[in-house]
Amino acid sequence: MRHTDWIQAAPGVWKTTLGSPEGLTPLTCMKRKPKTEAMAGMPDVPLPIEWEEIAFTELKAGGSLLSFPLGQSEELYGAGLQFMRMNQRGRTRYLRVNSDPRQDTGETHAPVPFLVSGRGYGVLVDTARAVTMYCGSTLRQHEGAAAEARDRNTDRGWKATPASDRLEIRLPPEGAAVYLFAGPGMMDAVRRYNLFCGGGVLPPRWGLGFWHRVPTLYRDEEVEREAMEFRARDIPCDVIGLEPGWHSASYPCTYEWGADRFPDPAGFVSRMRQAGFRLNLWEHPYISPRSELYGEMQALSGDYAVWGGLAPDFALEKARELYAAQHEREHVSLGIAGYKLDECDGSELTRNSWMFPAHAAFPSGHDGEQMRQLYGLLLQDITSGLYRRKNLRTYGLVRASNAGASSLPYVLYSDLYDHRQFVRALCNASFCGLLWSPEVRRTESTEDWVRRMQTVCFSPLAMLNAWGDGVKPWSDPAAEAEIRHYIRLRMRLLPYLYTVFAEYEANGTPPFPAMPLVLDEAKRTKQRAASAAGENHPDAAALNGASPKGPIQAFDVLDTSEGAYGTRLGREWDDQFCIGRDLLVAPMFAGETGRDVLLPEGVWYEAETGVRREGGRVIRVECPLERLPLFVREGAVIPMMPALSHVPEGDIPIELVHFGSAPGESLLYDDDGETFDYEQTGGCWRKVTVAKTADGSFSGTVEPGGAGSRYRIAGWRFGQTSLPPEASEPANRGGICNE
Amino acid sequence: MRHTDWIQAAPGVWKTTLGSPEGLTPLTCMKRKPKTEAMAGMPDVPLPIEWEEIAFTELKAGGSLLSFPLGQSEELYGAGLQFMRMNQRGRTRYLRVNSDPRQDTGETHAPVPFLVSGRGYGVLVDTARAVTMYCGSTLRQHEGAAAEARDRNTDRGWKATPASDRLEIRLPPEGAAVYLFAGPGMMDAVRRYNLFCGGGVLPPRWGLGFWHRVPTLYRDEEVEREAMEFRARDIPCDVIGLEPGWHSASYPCTYEWGADRFPDPAGFVSRMRQAGFRLNLWEHPYISPRSELYGEMQALSGDYAVWGGLAPDFALEKARELYAAQHEREHVSLGIAGYKLDECDGSELTRNSWMFPAHAAFPSGHDGEQMRQLYGLLLQDITSGLYRRKNLRTYGLVRASNAGASSLPYVLYSDLYDHRQFVRALCNASFCGLLWSPEVRRTESTEDWVRRMQTVCFSPLAMLNAWGDGVKPWSDPAAEAEIRHYIRLRMRLLPYLYTVFAEYEANGTPPFPAMPLVLDEAKRTKQRAASAAGENHPDAAALNGASPKGPIQAFDVLDTSEGAYGTRLGREWDDQFCIGRDLLVAPMFAGETGRDVLLPEGVWYEAETGVRREGGRVIRVECPLERLPLFVREGAVIPMMPALSHVPEGDIPIELVHFGSAPGESLLYDDDGETFDYEQTGGCWRKVTVAKTADGSFSGTVEPGGAGSRYRIAGWRFGQTSLPPEASEPANRGGICNE
Repeated sequence: MRHTDWIQAAPGVWKTTLGSPEGLTPLTCMKRKPKTEAMAGMPDVPLPIEWEEIAFTELKAGGSLLSFPLGQSEELYGAGLQFMRMNQRGRTRYLRVNSDPRQDTGETHAPVPFLVSGRGYGVLVDTARAVTMYCGSTLRQHEGAAAEARDRNTDRGWKATPASDRLEIRLPPEGAAVYLFAGPGMMDAVRRYNLFCGGGVLPPRWGLGFWHRVPTLYRDEEVEREAMEFRARDIPCDVIGLEPGWHSASYPCTYEWGADRFPDPAGFVSRMRQAGFRLNLWEHPYISPRSELYGEMQALSGDYAVWGGLAPDFALEKARELYAAQHEREHVSLGIAGYKLDECDGSELTRNSWMFPAHAAFPSGHDGEQMRQLYGLLLQDITSGLYRRKNLRTYGLVRASNAGASSLPYVLYSDLYDHRQFVRALCNASFCGLLWSPEVRRTESTEDWVRRMQTVCFSPLAMLNAWGDGVKPWSDPAAEAEIRHYIRLRMRLLPYLYTVFAEYEANGTPPFPAMPLVLDEAKRTKQRAASAAGENHPDAAALNGASPKGPIQAFDVLDTSEGAYGTRLGREWDDQFCIGRDLLVAPMFAGETGRDVLLPEGVWYEAETGVRREGGRVIRVECPLERLPLFVREGAVIPMMPALSHVPEGDIPIELVHFGSAPGESLLYDDDGETFDYEQTGGCWRKVTVAKTADGSFSGTVEPGGAGSRYRIAGWRFGQTSLPPEASEPANRGGICNE
Repeated sequence: MRHTDWIQAAPGVWKTTLGSPEGLTPLTCMKRKPKTEAMAGMPDVPLPIEWEEIAFTELKAGGSLLSFPLGQSEELYGAGLQFMRMNQRGRTRYLRVNSDPRQDTGETHAPVPFLVSGRGYGVLVDTARAVTMYCGSTLRQHEGAAAEARDRNTDRGWKATPASDRLEIRLPPEGAAVYLFAGPGMMDAVRRYNLFCGGGVLPPRWGLGFWHRVPTLYRDEEVEREAMEFRARDIPCDVIGLEPGWHSASYPCTYEWGADRFPDPAGFVSRMRQAGFRLNLWEHPYISPRSELYGEMQALSGDYAVWGGLAPDFALEKARELYAAQHEREHVSLGIAGYKLDECDGSELTRNSWMFPAHAAFPSGHDGEQMRQLYGLLLQDITSGLYRRKNLRTYGLVRASNAGASSLPYVLYSDLYDHRQFVRALCNASFCGLLWSPEVRRTESTEDWVRRMQTVCFSPLAMLNAWGDGVKPWSDPAAEAEIRHYIRLRMRLLPYLYTVFAEYEANGTPPFPAMPLVLDEAKRTKQRAASAAGENHPDAAALNGASPKGPIQAFDVLDTSEGAYGTRLGREWDDQFCIGRDLLVAPMFAGETGRDVLLPEGVWYEAETGVRREGGRVIRVECPLERLPLFVREGAVIPMMPALSHVPEGDIPIELVHFGSAPGESLLYDDDGETFDYEQTGGCWRKVTVAKTADGSFSGTVEPGGAGSRYRIAGWRFGQTSLPPEASEPANRGGICNE
């Protein structure tokens, strides 16, 4: 066992290269520029472990082992889009792409080899090969193993998974680059990771509206008819997705319009756009012999076929160009707004064995294992590049991803369909620079239908996917009103969501943070405040690593001895999450009439009932089907817009809704919503302040919008405890406003 | 791609060594002598493929690929103890040991890298590393891949898994020895594989009686009380298994008796033996710090602990000796009859991550991956060796195995519990030199309970496992009579079962063959007969590879164009199996009142009702809960014994029961039932003949028993159509007898 040398790669980021890694990796193929300026503005802290504690061993069977110390209750989050658990501590994660991740092995659509530790740092392995991370799942014989031995028969302390004090990462035989990300907190480490990968994505504004995917084999007039029914029923919709059946042939794909169902694609796209709809096209990367691309692509593809089609070698510039040029000509030039990139996530264990094998050879010199781990990334990169060249943003769906994906305008989805797993995936995505859509398809009951629609409306991509079952928001008349309410609420909250994504873009802050990130950040903030207040404050001692004395209070934010909040009270809080700083969503699942919610410290308001709740504890909420446990933080100022049928071309009237009895401060982000001009201008960040006047009423101030601004401040509300109803009068309730 | 050199390793067996394999392998650690004499007696046929069709490619990422041609409808069976399907064609099999094989990935308790092809040959990779077998699951780009492309939307010929014309096997980076086994039929290839591995196991006679495992933490008098209740209730039982709780500490294990629950182990074992019970001890291979073995074993163990215990390096002779000596002293010398070897089947993806990792280092120089793949084999070898040294046979349970296991006296089991999967595993075990017990635990309904007990009584090891739930054969009063009936029937059929296992030992014929083996063998036999009858017979043409002309008859045994019977009629016949040549069992599953049965050609009798059935077709049987679809072949002579409480020490009275209206011939095997003396003497094989006399009655002849014989022929029955009831008078019904 020996130690390794680390060099600083960016502020708070260290790198080492072990072995002689070859070929593309997630970071090298993404070629994103780290946002070093934003990183430099973060706290300048060392790693919370000593360099000498990181060990490196070469293995007999090839490859090597990198090993990190683990504290007794140290939590490990991330490892990509995990569906089965949030804290990966105690589990071995085999990080290979897998299209059907039904077992808790670590394999998933997006097997990002990035972990963030509760101790406040992150580790990334940048490789196109499958990596195994032993997240405290191995117990070395000579390190107190005997002390772990128990008698299962008689000793209640016996554990199926004995405690381990090392995180071990098995690197591929060829080696890999490894990066470490400093904290001080988990949220900081995640931000640093995202910033190092180029920052988070800022979707076009329309991408945050409602999406609907029409059934397979629909023809143009069927699509238009279904789209117009959204307008007729007052259900907002910005994006219509076309599923298999728009190509002239698919499985494998031609990427050419089927003349029978879409005789005039340009006219169709243009008519849809006039009605306020963007179009998103389903495809997968396997090229049909009937595609015009086939001939030229043959020499640029792997030596194994998928469904009889070519698997292009997207590590080759020429293959990327051919694919891109055809897509530009056939789709983008017509006004197609983006793609759904399906089935780029196969591997050996994929159901039905359709994927090329790990031993496939590609002309670029990569093999099947490498190409599979990167396929999703490469497709996201090529297709998003089509839009960037036009200075247009896109937003779409993808079934595979990997490290370095935070800046990519794609949201993950799956053929899985467990509602709890979908919420857990949403949470877990936040640790690894990923986004996830808990898309809704047909359900078994009205209850499940409403609960899933509530969830998806508070997710990165709010979508109904009717490709196989033809379901529509109004399919269940008993629930149409509730479904409409939540889709409209999504639309009204769009300015808030857009600002939250702008924070992702600029600072790397995950827009939908899981509870461990939220709670850890709250703890650090409190500790910093305590530290500033003086060394003798008990919170300051905790910051310096001392353990608190005396009885441990439930949700004492200083308690580090029992693990962070994520696994407090014997359960993972993997079924609730925040949106930005100020909203907390606790989805309900079919069969429940109420649930426990872990509310972070502070005062919160149940957004649909106005009930005031003290945080810093677990509360019980009862929630009939027509309501969702949605909480707003005291002092928040939530920018809202009307529930328009779709994101408009022109100005958007904004209402600023202040919550609670405390003053507040927030930021409002705005730009053209369509282009990358914000990268030059910095976009339009406006500070919103609500102060309390001498007479106890409120006074609101918002900074001016500037040139790029599309928002028109139409009014304010102060001291709210619930979301204002749609119909009500907006302007300047309860205070004085300044702009 | 290049070709490789093959040398003959035994009659009809060829070997090549690719790369530079190191360390132990399944075959080298078993050190079994191939039964070359028996193999030499088999048909001398070439491989059904050309040597030049076998290709070998070195892979960029290390390792190499061995590739075999596949016919369009060629079936591939085996790949170890698979639970999810029988024909592996179209699937990628990742053959790594896995204690919780819930997904259809290929991983399993016994990942034997052996496949048998419907074309009539077998292939084995002899390695201690995980092997990936692509069983026609990959489609090379240049071999007609484009022709496989379909439009999923409109072409009903679209397949989720496109057809492939290669079996590809990825060998480990270090290489491996590969063996090929000639046919001509699948059954022949399997026999050759078993014979090459040393032949099949012949269990002690008592091993084929009924087994009951008592609950965890039972103390001596509780065990004795429960055992004696079998006697009181007239339910045969030969073996009582002790579960966790007999050790002084377990998880990890001491292998020493817990003095509180078993103060006098020698007395306990002796009292049990006097009552006719053998004892089987649960254990796993991880050594508790409280075991006397711990100190000396520490330097002989891997560098990772399991549940805080040592993982001994059983590749070291010294470790094997220590373990064996302690087991001999503590158990075998007391009269313990055998072991249940649990939890030797962990790997990275094991639930709860208790296993040592793949990168664990063992003093012998092996790593964790190798040791895990071999752990089950090594434990079987060590523990069975304890008995062989005493010239005593043992029979037990094990949760992990691999190639080369046919001669080992162990039956596989699992924590899984799907009844259909259990029957499928029983079938699949027959392709790979394995045995499987569909053990019964508590069930949800009387119906499920009875159906599972019926199945287990027709399996290699008939066992109720009450370790966790305390269930007993009489737990459900509504079903006690049926349960008793089937356990007693098992006992009565024991002489037949014993002969069937003797055929396994001598000729490698699987005792519980799956239907593809049975049907393929029937086809070959018919073709050989036709061939002998003259070249112009149409069956002879089929033997020579010509396709039959004209319409394809259902179950035409000549039909090779549509694949063998295994997948005929759109389904795999993986829910029924034979026992030897003459019994066919079609288990029923809860929720069914009847089922389809594929009956091979010939006449069969429903053994419990006497109904005569024409084979060579699929029949429908209705079966109330108190009956099981059990069929006996016309002309069979089934040796039966009384439903004794347990296998007796002295002579066993045998009744020879002839079925149907045709003459018959069969073999009856006998020996002392306890020792390996049969290896010197050849045991006692007695030919049994039933002829038809001039007056249409039957005449039976059985060869004399000889010195080692324990059987006393107590009577005959001729022309039976159902199993004789227990109470009835045995002697010489319906014919003349000679001995």
